[in-house]
Amino acid sequence: MMEKFFYPKSVAVIGASHEEKKIGHVIFKNLLEKFKGRVYPVNPKTEPILGQRVYPSVLDIEDEVDLAIIAVNALIVPKVLEDCGKKGIKNVVIISSGFSETGSLEGKKAEEKVKEIAKMYGIRIIGPNTIGIFNSENGLDATFFLEKDVKKPSKGNVSFLTQSGTIGILSLDMLAKEGIGIAKLVSYGNAIDVNESDLIEYFSKDEKTKVIAGFIESVRDGKKFLEVLKNTKKPIVLLKGGKTSFGARAASSHTSSLAGDHRVYSNIFKQFNVIEAETWDDLIDYLKILSFGRKAQGKRLAIVTNAGGFGVLASDFAFKIGLELPEPSEKLKEELKKHLPFYASVKNPIDITADADVERYKSVLKVLDNSKEYDLFLIVILIQTPMLNEDVLKILNDIKKPFAVCMSGTKVDDIKKKIESSLPVYDSPERAVRALKILTELKS
Amino acid sequence: MMEKFFYPKSVAVIGASHEEKKIGHVIFKNLLEKFKGRVYPVNPKTEPILGQRVYPSVLDIEDEVDLAIIAVNALIVPKVLEDCGKKGIKNVVIISSGFSETGSLEGKKAEEKVKEIAKMYGIRIIGPNTIGIFNSENGLDATFFLEKDVKKPSKGNVSFLTQSGTIGILSLDMLAKEGIGIAKLVSYGNAIDVNESDLIEYFSKDEKTKVIAGFIESVRDGKKFLEVLKNTKKPIVLLKGGKTSFGARAASSHTSSLAGDHRVYSNIFKQFNVIEAETWDDLIDYLKILSFGRKAQGKRLAIVTNAGGFGVLASDFAFKIGLELPEPSEKLKEELKKHLPFYASVKNPIDITADADVERYKSVLKVLDNSKEYDLFLIVILIQTPMLNEDVLKILNDIKKPFAVCMSGTKVDDIKKKIESSLPVYDSPERAVRALKILTELKS
Repeated sequence: MMEKFFYPKSVAVIGASHEEKKIGHVIFKNLLEKFKGRVYPVNPKTEPILGQRVYPSVLDIEDEVDLAIIAVNALIVPKVLEDCGKKGIKNVVIISSGFSETGSLEGKKAEEKVKEIAKMYGIRIIGPNTIGIFNSENGLDATFFLEKDVKKPSKGNVSFLTQSGTIGILSLDMLAKEGIGIAKLVSYGNAIDVNESDLIEYFSKDEKTKVIAGFIESVRDGKKFLEVLKNTKKPIVLLKGGKTSFGARAASSHTSSLAGDHRVYSNIFKQFNVIEAETWDDLIDYLKILSFGRKAQGKRLAIVTNAGGFGVLASDFAFKIGLELPEPSEKLKEELKKHLPFYASVKNPIDITADADVERYKSVLKVLDNSKEYDLFLIVILIQTPMLNEDVLKILNDIKKPFAVCMSGTKVDDIKKKIESSLPVYDSPERAVRALKILTELKS
Repeated sequence: MMEKFFYPKSVAVIGASHEEKKIGHVIFKNLLEKFKGRVYPVNPKTEPILGQRVYPSVLDIEDEVDLAIIAVNALIVPKVLEDCGKKGIKNVVIISSGFSETGSLEGKKAEEKVKEIAKMYGIRIIGPNTIGIFNSENGLDATFFLEKDVKKPSKGNVSFLTQSGTIGILSLDMLAKEGIGIAKLVSYGNAIDVNESDLIEYFSKDEKTKVIAGFIESVRDGKKFLEVLKNTKKPIVLLKGGKTSFGARAASSHTSSLAGDHRVYSNIFKQFNVIEAETWDDLIDYLKILSFGRKAQGKRLAIVTNAGGFGVLASDFAFKIGLELPEPSEKLKEELKKHLPFYASVKNPIDITADADVERYKSVLKVLDNSKEYDLFLIVILIQTPMLNEDVLKILNDIKKPFAVCMSGTKVDDIKKKIESSLPVYDSPERAVRALKILTELKS
């Protein structure tokens, strides 16, 4: 049943609009341009949209329809949903807002009506009050933002579920910006049917998904949630909104969810090896390193740096969060010294000094990668020195152990744009170290 | 005596090189192009550099010389410094590395020799082992990085001292990137003479400096340091490197400094109202809001947002770090409602919903700014909605109370480039909230 949300052969966009700025227009345009399947616009006004024949109702489409995307006024949703039922459509995404989240009686009534109809016809529903769904594999971009406003990520292994639409949009954009590839994304809004547990369960079985990420405000079915967390073997990163009394109040006027006590959630997350992101930045940072797909065998970190100051900051932070930073053995030190000038430091951080070139990074990292003394690397690259350019990133392909890179500054943005692969590159030493720590906390 | 480091009438670059990639060449080029004063290249090879007459020694310059920048091999430094003494130059920046920081006997000896000569001639020295100094006011860019590699910030009110050269370079670049203006920057390296206390003292009296920022690894003269912190009325933000045993080890092989116990520093910082940045990101984030120059009268935060999810995250974080998030009074709620659709929330966060346009932001913020119920604002702007564009930033000029803006995503980078003024704009809700908190902790 869930499969057709992501792999429909044909999609109807109910409320496909003739006006360029309207949600129903943008969704139809995105699908028409990208989706590898058939797309049918539905609107009582049947003048063509973007050159395509428009159907007054889904009932007028001769073809079978696997998925309907509804983007009409909340009060009309029950009517068009009933048409979907009659047409035999079993998967519906309701984009429209104006339901229980408004706090109005009208909205609540409309939502109840939608639930009834869905039950009657056996329709599975995502939403209402969502920004849509996204599948990078088949171009199913049923979101109401155009590429010019929101960048969409390339294909990848992260699947994302979010109650909040904003977080959905910003996740797509930030993942694209940071070069993190995505498999699927679902904004599930008021979650009158499909909820966080259904989605985690689906992603845990989905072949394309290697990392599950989510922003959740509340959990509908506690028992199922625990079961799903327990059974998922893939890494899960969750950002919990509404952790505090302030946040809970905000969440309740946002998606009318009961946020619950944060300590309860934190304990559950720990128990089931769920990685908890404390902040928005953490979430993106963790996905970057997790999507790179490596696991650490232990906590022994080696820092290699051409920038002393960042080496110091990284060391302080590694200590603070409980990573180990052992000095190399005498034997390893001797090996390292062969590739370094006399004034370099072979303690840890291995300070290869500001005049380091690509070759020096390469040979030092090779020695460390082949030794059994370290489990993971932080590679600090002050790329602004005259000795370096973006070629230094090529040597990273040879490293077998997990690593993160810290590069900072204006120049880095341009370099990032040139790199196609999603390397775990961070702006700040502390964020890189924190991301590395996550690799030591994965389920085995 | 310190004044001439920043406001010389004439500068000699000793070791100005004919080779484009050499430090001495880059410093000379930067000064020649930007410095509003006279610049003299010094090199035993007297072929012209960049079309300028080259002097074999400072003693051959007929003009008076206020400041010498030395960028020659460490072993030659004593000799050229002696020439400076004979020439009557009282201010010298020694860029060269290869002194005590190498741990070598040779280096230590050379450093001792330099100290002796400086004492004999009464020369004040910044360095050695630095990336130079920078004064935005008169174009004194005596750093060895070109604009193509490292962006230099525009004129502003932040002055920066750093022991680490890397941090110096990255500070310039990051401040430029984030639109934070700078007054002066000094990388003071091994600090054989001018140290952190001298610089904080100088900046505290410098008219152009409104905010003092620093990265310090160790403190040379504890008594003076305390005195200086006590007497400074301007906001000071310090990032302390070598807080932990790991970090201290890193610092000691980096600038041969004794880092000391972090708790001692933290207590001192608290006692003297110094703002301690915990991470590199914090440092930049704090400078951004401090350079904007507002102070909060209390801790009552209002969050205005068109993005529910970010409102929730900001609320959670505000609670966590001890800001207050009171609901508006009934009277204020009524006033706010006049400018909002029925489904908007007037609790706090004030969720003006995803269809908010510029006018809605403007009127809601005006009501809040005029009320006496809040001390500071977080303004979350999901700028990716079709209702908004960068014009929304113009309304910020009318706000009288302190505020921070949270805008996230790819589009924001382009918008930031278009804005000339240094608005306190942050990528993530938590970082914006943390920066706001700083405004409540300033010396009165």
